[in-house]
Amino acid sequence: MTTFNGPDYFWKGAQTLKVPMELFKLNRQRLCEALRAHRTLPSESFVFLQGGASEMRYCSDHEPLFRQESYFHWAFGVIEPDFFGVINVHNGESILFIPRLPSSYVAWMGKIKETDEFKKIYHVDHVYYVDELEKVFNEIVGTSKLILVLNGLNTDSGKESKAASFEGMDKFHVDKTTLHPIISECRVFKTDFELDVMRYANKISSEAHKFVMLNIKDGMHEYELEALFQYYCQRHGGMRHMSYTCICATGENPAVLHYGHAGAPNDRQLTSKDMCLFDMGGEYYCYASDITCAFPVSGHFTKEQRIIYEAVLDANRQVMKSVRPGVSWTDMHLIAERTQLEHLKAAGLIQGDIDEMMNVRLCSVFMPHGLGHMIGIDTHDVGGYTDPQTRSSLPGLKSLRTNRLLQERMCLTIEPGIYFNQGLINNAYENEEFKKFLNRDEINKYLHVGGVRIEDDIVVTNDGCELLTVVPRTCDEIEEWMKYNDKQVIDKIDYKLFDELNKKHQYKNQDLTVKNK
Amino acid sequence: MTTFNGPDYFWKGAQTLKVPMELFKLNRQRLCEALRAHRTLPSESFVFLQGGASEMRYCSDHEPLFRQESYFHWAFGVIEPDFFGVINVHNGESILFIPRLPSSYVAWMGKIKETDEFKKIYHVDHVYYVDELEKVFNEIVGTSKLILVLNGLNTDSGKESKAASFEGMDKFHVDKTTLHPIISECRVFKTDFELDVMRYANKISSEAHKFVMLNIKDGMHEYELEALFQYYCQRHGGMRHMSYTCICATGENPAVLHYGHAGAPNDRQLTSKDMCLFDMGGEYYCYASDITCAFPVSGHFTKEQRIIYEAVLDANRQVMKSVRPGVSWTDMHLIAERTQLEHLKAAGLIQGDIDEMMNVRLCSVFMPHGLGHMIGIDTHDVGGYTDPQTRSSLPGLKSLRTNRLLQERMCLTIEPGIYFNQGLINNAYENEEFKKFLNRDEINKYLHVGGVRIEDDIVVTNDGCELLTVVPRTCDEIEEWMKYNDKQVIDKIDYKLFDELNKKHQYKNQDLTVKNK
Repeated sequence: MTTFNGPDYFWKGAQTLKVPMELFKLNRQRLCEALRAHRTLPSESFVFLQGGASEMRYCSDHEPLFRQESYFHWAFGVIEPDFFGVINVHNGESILFIPRLPSSYVAWMGKIKETDEFKKIYHVDHVYYVDELEKVFNEIVGTSKLILVLNGLNTDSGKESKAASFEGMDKFHVDKTTLHPIISECRVFKTDFELDVMRYANKISSEAHKFVMLNIKDGMHEYELEALFQYYCQRHGGMRHMSYTCICATGENPAVLHYGHAGAPNDRQLTSKDMCLFDMGGEYYCYASDITCAFPVSGHFTKEQRIIYEAVLDANRQVMKSVRPGVSWTDMHLIAERTQLEHLKAAGLIQGDIDEMMNVRLCSVFMPHGLGHMIGIDTHDVGGYTDPQTRSSLPGLKSLRTNRLLQERMCLTIEPGIYFNQGLINNAYENEEFKKFLNRDEINKYLHVGGVRIEDDIVVTNDGCELLTVVPRTCDEIEEWMKYNDKQVIDKIDYKLFDELNKKHQYKNQDLTVKNK
Repeated sequence: MTTFNGPDYFWKGAQTLKVPMELFKLNRQRLCEALRAHRTLPSESFVFLQGGASEMRYCSDHEPLFRQESYFHWAFGVIEPDFFGVINVHNGESILFIPRLPSSYVAWMGKIKETDEFKKIYHVDHVYYVDELEKVFNEIVGTSKLILVLNGLNTDSGKESKAASFEGMDKFHVDKTTLHPIISECRVFKTDFELDVMRYANKISSEAHKFVMLNIKDGMHEYELEALFQYYCQRHGGMRHMSYTCICATGENPAVLHYGHAGAPNDRQLTSKDMCLFDMGGEYYCYASDITCAFPVSGHFTKEQRIIYEAVLDANRQVMKSVRPGVSWTDMHLIAERTQLEHLKAAGLIQGDIDEMMNVRLCSVFMPHGLGHMIGIDTHDVGGYTDPQTRSSLPGLKSLRTNRLLQERMCLTIEPGIYFNQGLINNAYENEEFKKFLNRDEINKYLHVGGVRIEDDIVVTNDGCELLTVVPRTCDEIEEWMKYNDKQVIDKIDYKLFDELNKKHQYKNQDLTVKNK
């Protein structure tokens, strides 16, 4: 086994990233500190978390590839299903409970690891079997101390997390409210260890996007580009999971924000006139990347494509230049909207007073989604709303996945976009507040652009932000990179060429990695 | 959209297979005929099925890529989640119930298809919304007629299927026992339409295996081969789902039957001395393939590798030559065991009387699994046991996923294997019944082989079987094919070369596609 063949890290071999197990120890430590700072919580409390369970598809015995539950991963980094974990808030001691496997496991699933092996792999203090939960809880917790379980709302999904439990737990004191907001808040702020993984996930996914751009040809189907992207991420990055289902939208499809799902499965055939909107990211050891590249199949922007692309890129950069601790994400969204409206007005697609447009929320016609979201172990990471009641009900703003003031070590996506969604635009033509701003003849000239989104991942630094995504971003950079597309002979994939080019064109995007003073 | 851009078929474009929607109409028709032949069932009955539901991972809003529930797919071929379906047993009329989507769907998920569009796509008689279920049931079923829902045991998973339901259903007459055995039995026998999809899934997955063999190099990691396989299946076959998690086992790992799961994630680095056991298959439009290739990384079998490989291949062929309607699958398993024991004895790994070995079930030490299983819309397809009580409790035989007499149009895998699983072998040395047969010194010489499995997919014909899998199978064929591995320059993937070679080496395996008289 490579994954844990070093005693102290997770690693997929070759040039993939070694992730020290200290990452999780530090997370547990931070959680304990935050809990100990809680005013009314007795210091003798125990965090109790349940890992993800193995599953079978419907009634069949088909097992989808297991992916760990995100809170459990954050605390323990365990890759196997059916674990439980306990953390002593007082002294930080950690315990894992592992499933007791039947002897037939040896033939079907592999060598049965003993408790001591898991203790070494995951750097915890004790390891017991799941069937010993009640016994161990009797010994260490007793009926006097408090068990903190995870119970609370995920503001992106509207779903409640599942509180850990075992048979016989009802005789213990259980607190269902304290843990969720505190551990979620811990997850919002990424440690240096975590940032290294985020950087790596972004690096590989950025390369994979560049790989796709190098190998795209008209006549291919969208799913072939999905295949290329996933292949690169897994083969060269050791990423077995994507952060989310790949969105490979071309032609009119970029106007559909979550295109690529089972009912719209990236199945269109590309033409040389298309813009691509490829929103794809791989995850490494459960840390996500989320990157959108927009570019023309031909490698050359038309006038209209360039106008829309540069409007979105300007919005992206204006936001990036404004990001620093203390600014509000809602304000960042408004900056992006205003920038895009200014460009659309300059190009003649809309007319009138920009402030008035902002007041009636006109930009939501062209960008119905929020500017971006927290990112971490989930693509839409937790902690976006500390109080869901504060969510706006206004078009555009209601779609924001966070309305927080930015703080150092928050990771977010910046993903403005302009889309020509026929349904939304037709509605706008009939909207009394909107229609006077819209220049239908000019808009019609841009419908074929479909939509452009430019999505980067950033971490907020003490005086600005660090850009994690490293892809060609300006129209010139994209056209330059795609020149080499012709050198890639059809029916061959030449890694050597890609490697050379990749080393040459690193797109550090230094003008984007802005230190904002 | 390509997938349903023809009015009458599912298609992923290019050279991928067009699957006519008649496939599902015929399935519904067969089901109605089987139900009408049921002695006590009133002819005025309605089959009521629930499609798979869209899901989110744990508490997050991460949506795993939807894959349809298998019974629902068999009856309707619907690719979207959250549908229901009804079939009038008396006259075969079919109704789909589709979710009523919110207007925001337009921006996020795409154009909202009306009921009439779905009627055309899926060739059903009526389409309503899910929220009209009670109303429509009142009109067409009333309180006098019978609703047949799916409720029964899957003998591979031990799980019960989920009966369709809606609020307000309790006032109707519901039959929970009739449908499951009858629809499962229909699924066991594949129509010509279905066989075409099975052949296609096997063709593409076979090519993908050959592609992997052409591009394998020592120093790579197992997951890189998984990446190559999946890439080929999706890019060239339009297969977005694998039939099951890829098993890319090398070195000692082939001895672990379901290696490749999250806890053993194909993460070993290959050496030139390894045997590979790659058990991988793609699915197309929910029809599975399940293929295992075993070969040396170097392209050249050692003496020991060849001895074990040829023992398994002989078992595979002996079974294939014996398969015809009327023979028992249990007998096929015993043929495979006996063949393998004879080879192991000839090579000196075991000694003694073969009949005696068979009596004590010695072969289960080297092949702890069953010979194969039904295959179709699930990899381990339904219908293996018409009466689970008849399952054997003997080693080896108890692992059989079916004990039926073979009949025309059954699809099965034939997958004998010999594994050197240190745990199982050590147990055998201490087993009074086994140890006298085992020649420890000779066995030790073979431990490095790890394990060999040769898995083909077949359909039973009127006088034998048709082999669906088309890969190099004999040691000579494998060594010949892998000669071209050296021509594949490192760091390049040359499809043109692959295509040429693939056309040249079709491995019709005519000596295996035996008509058994």
